Amino acid sequence: MNAGMNAGNLPAFRFDVVARSQGARAGVLHTPRGAVRTPCFMPVGTKGTVKAISPERLRSIGAQIVLANTYHLALRPGSEVVAELGGLHGFMGWDGPILTDSGGFQVFSLKGTATIRDEGVAFRSVYDGSTHTFTPERAMLEQQRLGADLVMCFDECPPGGSPREDVAAAVRRTEAWARRCRDAHVRAEGRGHDGPQMLFGIVQGGTHLDLRRESVAGLLELDFPGYAIGGLSVGEERGAMLETTEATAAMLPPERPRYFMGIGDPGGLLEVIERGIDMFDCVLPTRIARMGTAFVPGGRLNLRNAEHTSSREPLESGCPCQACTTFSRGALRHFVMQKEILGLQLLTEHNLVHVFRLVEAARAAILGGRFAEFKGTFSSNGEHR
Amino acid sequence: MNAGMNAGNLPAFRFDVVARSQGARAGVLHTPRGAVRTPCFMPVGTKGTVKAISPERLRSIGAQIVLANTYHLALRPGSEVVAELGGLHGFMGWDGPILTDSGGFQVFSLKGTATIRDEGVAFRSVYDGSTHTFTPERAMLEQQRLGADLVMCFDECPPGGSPREDVAAAVRRTEAWARRCRDAHVRAEGRGHDGPQMLFGIVQGGTHLDLRRESVAGLLELDFPGYAIGGLSVGEERGAMLETTEATAAMLPPERPRYFMGIGDPGGLLEVIERGIDMFDCVLPTRIARMGTAFVPGGRLNLRNAEHTSSREPLESGCPCQACTTFSRGALRHFVMQKEILGLQLLTEHNLVHVFRLVEAARAAILGGRFAEFKGTFSSNGEHR
Repeated sequence: MNAGMNAGNLPAFRFDVVARSQGARAGVLHTPRGAVRTPCFMPVGTKGTVKAISPERLRSIGAQIVLANTYHLALRPGSEVVAELGGLHGFMGWDGPILTDSGGFQVFSLKGTATIRDEGVAFRSVYDGSTHTFTPERAMLEQQRLGADLVMCFDECPPGGSPREDVAAAVRRTEAWARRCRDAHVRAEGRGHDGPQMLFGIVQGGTHLDLRRESVAGLLELDFPGYAIGGLSVGEERGAMLETTEATAAMLPPERPRYFMGIGDPGGLLEVIERGIDMFDCVLPTRIARMGTAFVPGGRLNLRNAEHTSSREPLESGCPCQACTTFSRGALRHFVMQKEILGLQLLTEHNLVHVFRLVEAARAAILGGRFAEFKGTFSSNGEHR
Repeated sequence: MNAGMNAGNLPAFRFDVVARSQGARAGVLHTPRGAVRTPCFMPVGTKGTVKAISPERLRSIGAQIVLANTYHLALRPGSEVVAELGGLHGFMGWDGPILTDSGGFQVFSLKGTATIRDEGVAFRSVYDGSTHTFTPERAMLEQQRLGADLVMCFDECPPGGSPREDVAAAVRRTEAWARRCRDAHVRAEGRGHDGPQMLFGIVQGGTHLDLRRESVAGLLELDFPGYAIGGLSVGEERGAMLETTEATAAMLPPERPRYFMGIGDPGGLLEVIERGIDMFDCVLPTRIARMGTAFVPGGRLNLRNAEHTSSREPLESGCPCQACTTFSRGALRHFVMQKEILGLQLLTEHNLVHVFRLVEAARAAILGGRFAEFKGTFSSNGEHR
């Protein structure tokens, strides 16, 4: 599949599934800025930086690709400014692959002031209350200026618990918008600020499998090189989320990458990997880090608990990150309690390393044809049994 | 000179002046945890971390020694907890030399609730308002538990603009306290938590040269292996500060290191180096970094200024730090404006690198016997002419 234009005959983007184990798959997504081994967790750099970690450290701990948010960057500093400053890669100091969302999710979820029409969505900026309108064409233009490698169609993501008719309307609007995004992408010759872009369609439909099927059918007509599953992790039961994920993944073309939008807890990652998901992102690992909570093999460890005050133990023994190799839990707790920025830096790095190592281990298990055994060593929340 | 006890005949600490150029000197302070080339700027790790930078990065940008504050660490998490967690070196993740102040400066400067008696100082904690008393003996005990390599006598630092009689009283009390600190140090066999400690005397006396002379005379009787100049940079005129520094440095034994407490602006550093100072510390470079201000050859650059919004220039061309090699001023400004932690990290690193490079260049000039020419290329605020 070829998502962009390029000089030669080789596609700018290519996805190869290299192994399967049960429903899980291991692959490689080739991009002009490097290959991404899947399954892959993508850290979120909302406003152009993953919070509390430098791109240099991100690379050194094994990040392959990072996300940025079109909504935030379109408002601050503005996509034209980002383009002037070298596009997202130059701006963020990250020369590897970048993925931008379309802004759709934030338009709907930040403040309840969005007015949705078929043309697009009018909303108020969280920064200054000013009024803006995002249309599919505008979302594509913003993403072209930002210049990420992987870009997303503008979609409508109804809140969790929405009535079926609202979800159905969102599916139809998302399909119509996907067509307009695809057209805008083609008009731009598949290129953004400084290189080809791979455009993903987004499947909506809540936990209604017939609506998911309808959404997939509409998107398949547009023949996207990759598909995202949106509208989950928005408050539904985890069982329903996983069933929907499994069923939706099975509807998608097996040779195209599948991106689950918004999951980052260790247990959940293994569940969606098992169901055929290749890529996922979430602010959870970095957000809970900034609240003093670390992923550890036994679950989560809250450093604010007084029991850690004099603990000489490392956060997670065997973890190669700076927090674990250099500091005691007691020292980390002190930094957290005193709101020292170093505490945020160290826990951010640790939680990302924890997730990267888990996903790498899952990939190795898939390559070795033993994903079920591997997953069986974890309980449902991602703890080692 | 030998400030501690050790197994062999070699002193645990040794200071060698290796070159002089005008009043400026280059030296090496040998400590059990490594040598410190002087002149040397010491970054301040108030609560056990230099704010917004990891010890690994500190080392990689050339920090040789770091400071920590006894006042803060004695209250949070407590020096006994720090000792349990491996002493300051283990706690901070820094295996190089560490210097602790005695807590004196903070006791007097944080909140105006200190009650000073000859025995010691009663004060209220900035953390919870609880009452504490620091005596010279207690300050030494706290520093022994923390286990820094270089430790300071407990001194009285009167506020800037104090009447002469208050400054004179502080000089006498500081001398009496220095004797008690020295005695406590000897009783502990010159050792802290896990190694020998070098105890510095602190000269007080404001800008009154006769009081400075009296203070030095009292301390010289106690034969400290190093001397600090306190009670300056507390609001006096810079001219008076420099005159006092020059005169006081000339009163001190030439073979002992001289530490100016609390100076960190590029211009000021060159001035005190010229006057024979070997070591200095200040929160200024890291504090202004967190406010969005960077040291640049032309002075200071405030990234909050809108003019930097679309600037593709590096912060300081030729600077090898991450901020300058990876990001544009526009991107750095965006991080600052959005309160992204990465902005604090990058500017902290830059300002430290700027100061380290300046001091290294000053040292090279001293070694080359051309300090005056070197200093002549800067204006009085440290700008390159």
